[in-house]
Amino acid sequence: MEQIPVLKLGEFLLVSIQVELHDELVMSLQDDLTSRIERTHAKGVLIDISALEIVDSFIGRTLGHIAAMARVMDATTVLVGMRPAVAITLVELGMSLHGIRTALDVDKGMALLRRSLEDAGDPSSLP
Amino acid sequence: MEQIPVLKLGEFLLVSIQVELHDELVMSLQDDLTSRIERTHAKGVLIDISALEIVDSFIGRTLGHIAAMARVMDATTVLVGMRPAVAITLVELGMSLHGIRTALDVDKGMALLRRSLEDAGDPSSLP
Repeated sequence: MEQIPVLKLGEFLLVSIQVELHDELVMSLQDDLTSRIERTHAKGVLIDISALEIVDSFIGRTLGHIAAMARVMDATTVLVGMRPAVAITLVELGMSLHGIRTALDVDKGMALLRRSLEDAGDPSSLP
Repeated sequence: MEQIPVLKLGEFLLVSIQVELHDELVMSLQDDLTSRIERTHAKGVLIDISALEIVDSFIGRTLGHIAAMARVMDATTVLVGMRPAVAITLVELGMSLHGIRTALDVDKGMALLRRSLEDAGDPSSLP
């Protein structure tokens, strides 16, 4: 079961991270996600981390890399579902996730993506 | 990280099963899901099993129980993302998932839920 599914939700992609990330899993997630962005022309990626009780510097860096990959493929990444304890740890680790937008839950993350696409003037993003 | 998150997607709930289900995890998922249905008044539940390579009779039964619980709380369950090998196994095990609707992916599952709510004449479900 070692695979993190990338789910298509309308015009966006959703990745729900529930298992401990290790190098191999991260590589396969990056492959999957970038090929899904290419295939589906998704303009936004939602990464849900509500199942994660701990985010260490490896996961923090990995999320940053994924967001950067999505960005160069013209998709915006929003991190959703962060627990309060995770926010505290991230800042204490000195990782303030520059360049990654966040939202409290998937609904708010999708609203943020829609707004940012509308602001960018992409007519295909209008509901 | 032993928890399966229940994500709110507009008027529906999404559960993406990625880890091996065991008794305790199933109990906590059932608790979470039923309390989320109560809190959010969700009319539909999407269970994504695209990460599962194997579905044994325990998982099959569990999915049936979850769907039955959702049904008595007036929510429809749609199972999405089933792999071909899983479909073969399920039928070979004699589990044809009576009473659970299925769809190929999350998008199609959401469309199915919307249609079934419209047919039921629920005006709040209209887009």
